[in-house]
Amino acid sequence: MASPEIEALTQALSKLPGLGPRSARRAVLHLLKKREGALAPLLNALMAVEENLSTCSICGNIDTTNPCGVCADPRRDGRALCVVEEVADLWALDRSRLFPGRFHVLGGRLSALEGVRPEDLAIESLVRRIADGGIDEVVLAMNATLEGQTTAHYLAERIERFPIRITQLAHGLPVGGELDYLDEGTLAQALRARRPVS
Amino acid sequence: MASPEIEALTQALSKLPGLGPRSARRAVLHLLKKREGALAPLLNALMAVEENLSTCSICGNIDTTNPCGVCADPRRDGRALCVVEEVADLWALDRSRLFPGRFHVLGGRLSALEGVRPEDLAIESLVRRIADGGIDEVVLAMNATLEGQTTAHYLAERIERFPIRITQLAHGLPVGGELDYLDEGTLAQALRARRPVS
Repeated sequence: MASPEIEALTQALSKLPGLGPRSARRAVLHLLKKREGALAPLLNALMAVEENLSTCSICGNIDTTNPCGVCADPRRDGRALCVVEEVADLWALDRSRLFPGRFHVLGGRLSALEGVRPEDLAIESLVRRIADGGIDEVVLAMNATLEGQTTAHYLAERIERFPIRITQLAHGLPVGGELDYLDEGTLAQALRARRPVS
Repeated sequence: MASPEIEALTQALSKLPGLGPRSARRAVLHLLKKREGALAPLLNALMAVEENLSTCSICGNIDTTNPCGVCADPRRDGRALCVVEEVADLWALDRSRLFPGRFHVLGGRLSALEGVRPEDLAIESLVRRIADGGIDEVVLAMNATLEGQTTAHYLAERIERFPIRITQLAHGLPVGGELDYLDEGTLAQALRARRPVS
């Protein structure tokens, strides 16, 4: 049997998404065998993050600074605001570098099943940000799920009184998507939103 | 863009086996969102291991004690010695709890291709352990690969002068293996080593 310390490390790693008990064990072995090359860098990186971790008081992003790197970036266009469900969504959109504006993280989606109500999400702070002015467009970038779309509709109603453009991400065929393999829901959306050939 | 600290953590995690850049990012998000429940335990576990990590001077196992937990365990049968290529193999056999004896880690396998020669492996220390006496049986538990089997043959020749039993793991159908899906090499081994129905 491995020592309690090694067992504890295996346990902690196996709780990460994407790692099970088996792959956690392999990861631990890798760390043990590469003390300088793998264990030390991971340990240092974790300590650096642990020390400075904070939730951005403006947008809800998680970063090592507050306000976060996105909110503090002067090159960002403050007139466009992209509302997302989770921090992961913000990161995904930010990575694509296609959206030049700022973000707002709701911290989830409305869900009758899971008992998530409007007051459980960062909706009041969103309304306040819009009420403060300076914003021209709000992009509702919810997931293309039932709950995501319900949340988008709810938000659209909550902010329709402001003189802003409210948009949402297009739905349709994903790039590389083959009709034969796509679900009916996606096909229906793509057909409904069909556009003239340009 | 995420902060440099978060980028460094993503980098460090993405180098673990089983995690790519994408899953590392998901793992980092998980850690950031569960500071108390995931980040802190992982950090503490890493520190505890980092502090005490050592290679067992007897068998070559990696553990937080030296001699390692296996070598120090008085319930282990010192008369049986199982020789493995890597620490990972020792752990796999130890987990199965089927082998009650001690281990010896070679630290690799002979390989003309990769230029691994006998002096690169812990073979001298193996011979010394056997020469010191008290060992009745040596199990050569190399991988069922060409290089593993070459190593086993080499080891068998090196230690055949000792009055010990030299054995190796059986080769044949894996449990649940279907003939239709097995490679010819395995089938050949299973057929060659066929036994009377008991």
